[in-house]
Amino acid sequence: MNVVQLPPRRKLGKIHVPTVTLAHGGGGKAMKDLIDDVFISAFAGASAPALEDQARFDLAALAVHGDRLAFTTDSFVIDPLEFPGGDIGKLAVCGTVNDLAVGGAKPLYLSCAVIVEEGVSLDMLRRLALSMAKTATDAGVGIVTGDTKVVPRGAADKLFITTTGIGVIPKGRDISVSRAQPGDGVLVNGWLGDHGAAILAARGDLALDADIQSDCAPLHGLIEALLCAAPGTRFIRDATRGGLATVLNEVAEASNVSILIAEDQTPLRPEVCGVCEILGLDPLYLANEGKIVIVVPPDEIPAALAAMRVHPLGEKAALIGHIGDGEAGRVVMKTVFGGSRIVDMLVGEQLPRIC
Amino acid sequence: MNVVQLPPRRKLGKIHVPTVTLAHGGGGKAMKDLIDDVFISAFAGASAPALEDQARFDLAALAVHGDRLAFTTDSFVIDPLEFPGGDIGKLAVCGTVNDLAVGGAKPLYLSCAVIVEEGVSLDMLRRLALSMAKTATDAGVGIVTGDTKVVPRGAADKLFITTTGIGVIPKGRDISVSRAQPGDGVLVNGWLGDHGAAILAARGDLALDADIQSDCAPLHGLIEALLCAAPGTRFIRDATRGGLATVLNEVAEASNVSILIAEDQTPLRPEVCGVCEILGLDPLYLANEGKIVIVVPPDEIPAALAAMRVHPLGEKAALIGHIGDGEAGRVVMKTVFGGSRIVDMLVGEQLPRIC
Repeated sequence: MNVVQLPPRRKLGKIHVPTVTLAHGGGGKAMKDLIDDVFISAFAGASAPALEDQARFDLAALAVHGDRLAFTTDSFVIDPLEFPGGDIGKLAVCGTVNDLAVGGAKPLYLSCAVIVEEGVSLDMLRRLALSMAKTATDAGVGIVTGDTKVVPRGAADKLFITTTGIGVIPKGRDISVSRAQPGDGVLVNGWLGDHGAAILAARGDLALDADIQSDCAPLHGLIEALLCAAPGTRFIRDATRGGLATVLNEVAEASNVSILIAEDQTPLRPEVCGVCEILGLDPLYLANEGKIVIVVPPDEIPAALAAMRVHPLGEKAALIGHIGDGEAGRVVMKTVFGGSRIVDMLVGEQLPRIC
Repeated sequence: MNVVQLPPRRKLGKIHVPTVTLAHGGGGKAMKDLIDDVFISAFAGASAPALEDQARFDLAALAVHGDRLAFTTDSFVIDPLEFPGGDIGKLAVCGTVNDLAVGGAKPLYLSCAVIVEEGVSLDMLRRLALSMAKTATDAGVGIVTGDTKVVPRGAADKLFITTTGIGVIPKGRDISVSRAQPGDGVLVNGWLGDHGAAILAARGDLALDADIQSDCAPLHGLIEALLCAAPGTRFIRDATRGGLATVLNEVAEASNVSILIAEDQTPLRPEVCGVCEILGLDPLYLANEGKIVIVVPPDEIPAALAAMRVHPLGEKAALIGHIGDGEAGRVVMKTVFGGSRIVDMLVGEQLPRIC
């Protein structure tokens, strides 16, 4: 069992461990102190112009990056808050940066709204805020405005974060779920299912001895390199909840096409397949937080693969299948045994609180 | 005791009451159905171009409204979810619309991220989504993108909503917490403390026989009328958590000024004062969701008051005090008995989960 590396625990004898109290959510002095202490001090370095109640940007400065504003939001409720390869703070920044980037936008600014349960340790809150700040700096985005709510013990499970992002899409760029055409290639940027398997193992209620790290990473750099090499790219989507299978079904439905993928071309770590076999899960539905599904026109497949493979987050990029003109909405996988099976939308729930 | 008007309850005998399950948060078919059924169908009418994973807007179309983009976020964790005068859906839209408007921005688009506890009834979820949609239509904003997470029973208390808003600030408009100057008037648009008192009464654990409604309302129209009549307005802020007292302290500190207000000029309903007396609360710290504090230069006070008083949300607008050149950061109230008392920042917590 892989153990999450946590800072040494304080002894809870006579030593006072400072925690969040309801007063921190009251709108008064304690709340201002908490926000200054935990968030403003962490985010000040994260290229933020200023953390205000309302952030403001010159529209003319935004227009330098392109002609359309992109706007997206996600709540993060992952359990546990800290896991091999990341934590809820890193995830909340990467998730929204990636949601902007897969639409072709340059991610620019994030807001961060936190719901904290009374009793959460201030040390952990500081650690998660610093993780958000570091990830934002790495991704070149500013965390520019926020909100903090405290709820009484039992009204939430420790911490939820909602990030909302704005970015700008360069002129002429058109990436959309409905643009896939027969003959297009279907690509991924590497091993699938790492995040889902890492969280399963980190939950600790399964005696899994798997050394799997979440793939949680900001993908804007990889996506820019890809779009530079393959400007005709039709569609990109991060394969988070519901995994590869869900994204493929969404494209097939929205573009009125069929999709055929090959099991032996789909990058899956033996450890991830092992976890899935033990638990009876299908790795195609496992969540990813650093993996994208890409549809590119046939003539740009080699360039797209080459551009991704020289990037640290795309070394294992692969062509896993093609768009077809079969039954619209149908996704089929050719198995390693030579047969074929339908890959349907996920029905039901594989794993709650995966992101 | 004022009773919240709820639809007739179904009998829970053999009748199946549909509720949210973990499958609704899995990223698959059930989630898509829930989002289509509850949110897309409700928000479709709310002037939204399209509810997508990533909403997109032409920067040129935004620039018609002004030269700066405003960006703000808030989580809503109010308990109870439905209360006299509103519900968490109405509150989540009004709160973010007002946060945009008080900075001088025209509110344009909202995102909506929902965290739902397993077991919440689908009927209630539909009701709250429709309430959000109606409020957004009334406020002239579109709910254009969103996210839904489901957490297991006990990991959250029913429902939390995070709304993030974007708006555009007209050229030349400069509203800021640091612009107050000695001699300026301090105004409010009506009765203070209604929201806080209504929530206290609605909680039901106090045997209060108070007929008080939350003042929850979108204030962008009132604010536009005010700024048209008093274009020199220095500062506007909605007096939510922490109430009037907290806003006044923030202005006094940020502008390096003192503030003197008069108790007999401050609009407080007798019912609200009654609730506060019974519970030992100070109405100056009670939350509002439809009240703003305004600082205007001396020559624009009459125009500002007149403009607000002809608006339905400003009939009881009042001049409650002035900015002074006394000790910087000090807020003092002249009491009805002729004495004076310091109005400090809220220390501690009056009421958790007020918004």
